[in-house]
Amino acid sequence: MRIGMIGAGSWGTALALVLHENGHEVRCWTIDEESLNDIRLKQENSRYLPGIKIPSEIVFTSDLRLIVEDPEIIVNAVPSQVTRSALSLVKEIFSDQGQIWVSVSKGIENKTYKRITQVIEEVMEVPAERIAALSGPSHAEEVARKIPTAIVSSSASIETARKIQQVFMNQYLRIYANDDVTGVELGGALKNIIALAAGICDGAGYGDNTKAALMTRGLVEISRLGVEMGARPSTFAGLSGMGDLIVTCMSRHSRNRYVGEQIGKGRTLKEVLDEMVMVAEGVRTAESAYELAKMKKVEMPITEQIYKVLFENKSPGQAMLDLMTRASKIEDWGA
Amino acid sequence: MRIGMIGAGSWGTALALVLHENGHEVRCWTIDEESLNDIRLKQENSRYLPGIKIPSEIVFTSDLRLIVEDPEIIVNAVPSQVTRSALSLVKEIFSDQGQIWVSVSKGIENKTYKRITQVIEEVMEVPAERIAALSGPSHAEEVARKIPTAIVSSSASIETARKIQQVFMNQYLRIYANDDVTGVELGGALKNIIALAAGICDGAGYGDNTKAALMTRGLVEISRLGVEMGARPSTFAGLSGMGDLIVTCMSRHSRNRYVGEQIGKGRTLKEVLDEMVMVAEGVRTAESAYELAKMKKVEMPITEQIYKVLFENKSPGQAMLDLMTRASKIEDWGA
Repeated sequence: MRIGMIGAGSWGTALALVLHENGHEVRCWTIDEESLNDIRLKQENSRYLPGIKIPSEIVFTSDLRLIVEDPEIIVNAVPSQVTRSALSLVKEIFSDQGQIWVSVSKGIENKTYKRITQVIEEVMEVPAERIAALSGPSHAEEVARKIPTAIVSSSASIETARKIQQVFMNQYLRIYANDDVTGVELGGALKNIIALAAGICDGAGYGDNTKAALMTRGLVEISRLGVEMGARPSTFAGLSGMGDLIVTCMSRHSRNRYVGEQIGKGRTLKEVLDEMVMVAEGVRTAESAYELAKMKKVEMPITEQIYKVLFENKSPGQAMLDLMTRASKIEDWGA
Repeated sequence: MRIGMIGAGSWGTALALVLHENGHEVRCWTIDEESLNDIRLKQENSRYLPGIKIPSEIVFTSDLRLIVEDPEIIVNAVPSQVTRSALSLVKEIFSDQGQIWVSVSKGIENKTYKRITQVIEEVMEVPAERIAALSGPSHAEEVARKIPTAIVSSSASIETARKIQQVFMNQYLRIYANDDVTGVELGGALKNIIALAAGICDGAGYGDNTKAALMTRGLVEISRLGVEMGARPSTFAGLSGMGDLIVTCMSRHSRNRYVGEQIGKGRTLKEVLDEMVMVAEGVRTAESAYELAKMKKVEMPITEQIYKVLFENKSPGQAMLDLMTRASKIEDWGA
């Protein structure tokens, strides 16, 4: 099968390797000249996936026509906030021949609050039934090193989810099919708020008990918002929700957890962000979720405190005390 | 309020400190003479909770009558496998005056497959509506150091759960009330199987992706067994399920995770258990769950592989390959 990949960062490159190994013809588009030269000369994408050999059969190119000409599947692997502009380039030269689109980026578009498959649907004018999202606990470097990993393929059409499952699945990448694409994409985006909270917990010197409680109650409240937006609660207990939350909150490499940790140590958001090259999506997601929760009257106490710590200079200690001393509650998912 | 505590290990002692701080009169029973002398002479339970000062107002005694004479609440804090024999001593001198019983031990009784509140109900002949279980992510030493912690109080009667919530809750110990005591107790016991799996994953050198997937799919399968035994699935997504699973799978101190890690490194179960002083409950729980799953026809692929690795010398690598290459599935909770 011929597959076009838009974007060649670490996750896009790792998935290209998987698809090549599964016997597909893969072409990746990137405008990063450094990566292109690197891959041509050294068979390695040393900026995004150092130490992994890239077979010469995988085509890397800056010529978008080679990608979108005649694939059966097109994978969008550019960061969520630049997806719309990348796709408008594709749109100019694309002719719809019934291809399936796959989003592998996590996030919600700023301002529009749209999920990435919704951006694809809107810009490319293809029906939701032909768009899938891949999500779950998946450090790219581990997948590239063939370390056992399990994620979900989700689409409004379970047939599409199943088809993508068959294309990507192999001995080290296990894929579960799922038809709650709203839940899958929201879990992947909203979990970054809880990663910020877990980071603050680490930085401020709280304990394992505290962090486990924040992660558990955090998942409950993002599920609540998700359900309000049309997702199923069980999806949040799956790989794209709980699974991804665990990897992100525990990892030394997570940018969102790192930002939280620095703030927990007493630094300001501006100080931390000013010195970072890459984006910590959770900061913007926290803002969006705080607004959405107010709009939809969903109780999100952890998100509210994270918002106040990030944007209103509230101290993490006071935020924790306010969380702990709320009125006593029943453990449920309704309120 | 007068409260009697049966057992003075690390968790019993930490909870006695909480109850004392909350203004209650606490008496703890233990037959461990070393602990008793230690507490009398040094105001410290240095074997189970080193470095924490114990106020002299908390009574520690080996005279069981002082504990069960006239409390309003009796807390059972002895290990699950000795609860029945400890309670039969209590039964001889106990007169039921409408006390509430609280179980803080995690586990399922061997052979009978009974939960600990069921053992209390049976031995003490008190109605289930007057028995609660406290469970959740709670290293005793963190609670004793007043590090923010959140757990659940659960009973067949929500009024009883609420009453226990009010007695234990304070600024650093947040309690949620819950009426699915079956789910709460099964979560606390069955999660140890997944901690063994997470440990094997660590010991065999798999990745963060692998561990997060095992934890997520592990929680799904223990929920499935729990539902078959009368629990609600949402309880497993709560503090006594997901929360406790996270703490146990991540902690350097968890005995179950440790046993798994050693086996993942290539040692046999017998070698590992022979050198341990304390019990790793998960080993027996894995055996019980494997039998229950077969009896009730519940699909538990991770538990099945753990059973084979523990008791049939299957290699962790082959177990992982068999898990990864099962038939492709829908991500759901039914099968």
